[in-house]
Amino acid sequence: MATGDNQIRIGLLSSSNIVRKVSRAINLAPNATITAIASISISIEEARSFAKSNGFSPTAKIHCSYESLLEDPEVDAVYFPIPASLHVEWAVRAAGKGKHVLIDKPVGLNVSEFDQIVEACEANGIQFMDGTQWMHNPRTAKIQEFLTDPVRFGQLKTVHSCFSFAANENFLKNDIRVKPGLDGLGALGDAGWYTIQSTLLANNFKLPKTVTALPGPVLNDAGIVLSCGALLEWEKEITATIYCSFLANLTMEITAIGTKGTLRVHDFVIPFQETEASFSTSSKDCFSEHKVVTEFIQEACMVIEFARLVGEIKNRGAKPDGFWVSISRKTQLLVDAVKESIDNNLEPVFLSGR
Amino acid sequence: MATGDNQIRIGLLSSSNIVRKVSRAINLAPNATITAIASISISIEEARSFAKSNGFSPTAKIHCSYESLLEDPEVDAVYFPIPASLHVEWAVRAAGKGKHVLIDKPVGLNVSEFDQIVEACEANGIQFMDGTQWMHNPRTAKIQEFLTDPVRFGQLKTVHSCFSFAANENFLKNDIRVKPGLDGLGALGDAGWYTIQSTLLANNFKLPKTVTALPGPVLNDAGIVLSCGALLEWEKEITATIYCSFLANLTMEITAIGTKGTLRVHDFVIPFQETEASFSTSSKDCFSEHKVVTEFIQEACMVIEFARLVGEIKNRGAKPDGFWVSISRKTQLLVDAVKESIDNNLEPVFLSGR
Repeated sequence: MATGDNQIRIGLLSSSNIVRKVSRAINLAPNATITAIASISISIEEARSFAKSNGFSPTAKIHCSYESLLEDPEVDAVYFPIPASLHVEWAVRAAGKGKHVLIDKPVGLNVSEFDQIVEACEANGIQFMDGTQWMHNPRTAKIQEFLTDPVRFGQLKTVHSCFSFAANENFLKNDIRVKPGLDGLGALGDAGWYTIQSTLLANNFKLPKTVTALPGPVLNDAGIVLSCGALLEWEKEITATIYCSFLANLTMEITAIGTKGTLRVHDFVIPFQETEASFSTSSKDCFSEHKVVTEFIQEACMVIEFARLVGEIKNRGAKPDGFWVSISRKTQLLVDAVKESIDNNLEPVFLSGR
Repeated sequence: MATGDNQIRIGLLSSSNIVRKVSRAINLAPNATITAIASISISIEEARSFAKSNGFSPTAKIHCSYESLLEDPEVDAVYFPIPASLHVEWAVRAAGKGKHVLIDKPVGLNVSEFDQIVEACEANGIQFMDGTQWMHNPRTAKIQEFLTDPVRFGQLKTVHSCFSFAANENFLKNDIRVKPGLDGLGALGDAGWYTIQSTLLANNFKLPKTVTALPGPVLNDAGIVLSCGALLEWEKEITATIYCSFLANLTMEITAIGTKGTLRVHDFVIPFQETEASFSTSSKDCFSEHKVVTEFIQEACMVIEFARLVGEIKNRGAKPDGFWVSISRKTQLLVDAVKESIDNNLEPVFLSGR
């Protein structure tokens, strides 16, 4: 797609595999385009071939360093498909150069890193968004409608969310998600991030008062979480349980139970079908299946929303939107709290004041 | 149905509401019949009218006391729809009179009461069964086939089970399930019994090594559990979470995740339809819906199995079958353990040696 006047110009920091998915999404988004890629681990020729095979415009620039991409005046925003341990350095630098940031989860290795990124964004009028795609699926808005409906759902009592997949031997040895120096939060920062965000969604993004890791976490030799569960507790005995794992069959469930209704989602992270997503609800004796047909795949919906917010700033002088930062920070806080509870013999962690 | 030679003659201890469901089941079971009812809270006329409206044979006897029913030579077995606090006394007496026993959950107020009942059964060659109906639905056998399939399911990693219903104000004030002197285990002994038995089913009826109640239990003024959760842990980091409640919308879920497959059941306690029950499974990328058509409703399946076992003893001199006792005792042990953990500030309870 040619660069339109109103398209947000996105630079990709790295040419790792995840880039394929997001670059497809950017290509699909009418309000965004890829104008540059920084590739430090492959040759210029390989990068050019990668760009071509992923449908980048022939005018997209290839940078040989991250610094160089951040200096590019034809880049409005940067997507960070790099290990979490590098996020804080490069996101702060990007913000300093006036680039808006779209950062994969986990945003930081802890909330202190998260806050450094957000401070840099605030200081420079930068839009921040984390790359949690399912939150942008139109189905999620429909789910939220049900969960906030006092007649169909009532008041949340409990929610259970799990996301697991059975990683192969190679993943469990070599993936960045099991390496302490890279994505040091393991299954918790990856699969767990989604489950925690879904429990926040179920309780209208209210932070719980305590988080307690459950017995039975599995850690690898380097101390990285491969599988764990946790209990979140809000006021009025409202609870959530989460389970995340690299060691169990692919499962992506939300079961939320209110005083008057129940929600069930079987594929909340990645819908079984790209452009039609379903969920079921029951209220009293009435069981309903809901299908939400979407014009765009959910990762394109994310890019469209990000580019829209960046466009508001770039073209209309708006201030950065705080909604996504707020949800993302709460998620990071809770991920941290589960890790802290695991490290402290499953003691409860109190969130008050954090 | 007339009393056939091979039909097991069942006496009902009480004419409470639950009797309607089980007496219908006995009427449907070809190998059982109702020959007597003991009614101590209503008049003979009312009892006769109750017997008629519930399809009892006109020859069914009305007893004015439990003792009298237990003396009746035309009663082979007794069903106990009476509060749990009365089970130990009357089940031990029934066993002493040579009557086989079918006892609603919770069997005892604690495992010590349970063991008194079972000892009396063993001493008198009596068949014991608890009245957990869903375990006898043919769907449950199909579910178990999937859960024990090394190719489709692999090794269990975690299972989540919840059973909740929103009890009305009258129930929460007056039902025997919220009264300390009656069914003193509250939601745990009722809804929780099912969830615990389903987690045992998922792990091939192996007892976990620890049980820990989760933060957020809700107790009424008399200390009866109205809602709670728990974590069960087996060897090799296999875990289960349960949630049971009288305070949340009707939900009856099992989600079991293995290394190779996932099971989902949405109506495990009482199937949405009486004679067709479904569940879904996924193994790798293959998602399947399974429907199990049943000739008999699940409560009739339970009666048929109970009467079959009693018949083996009565007509063929067999010994009582130990399978159902074993599952039932494990369930009672775990119910006790959750209660103990709640009473002990959510400390883990170790099951070893119990």
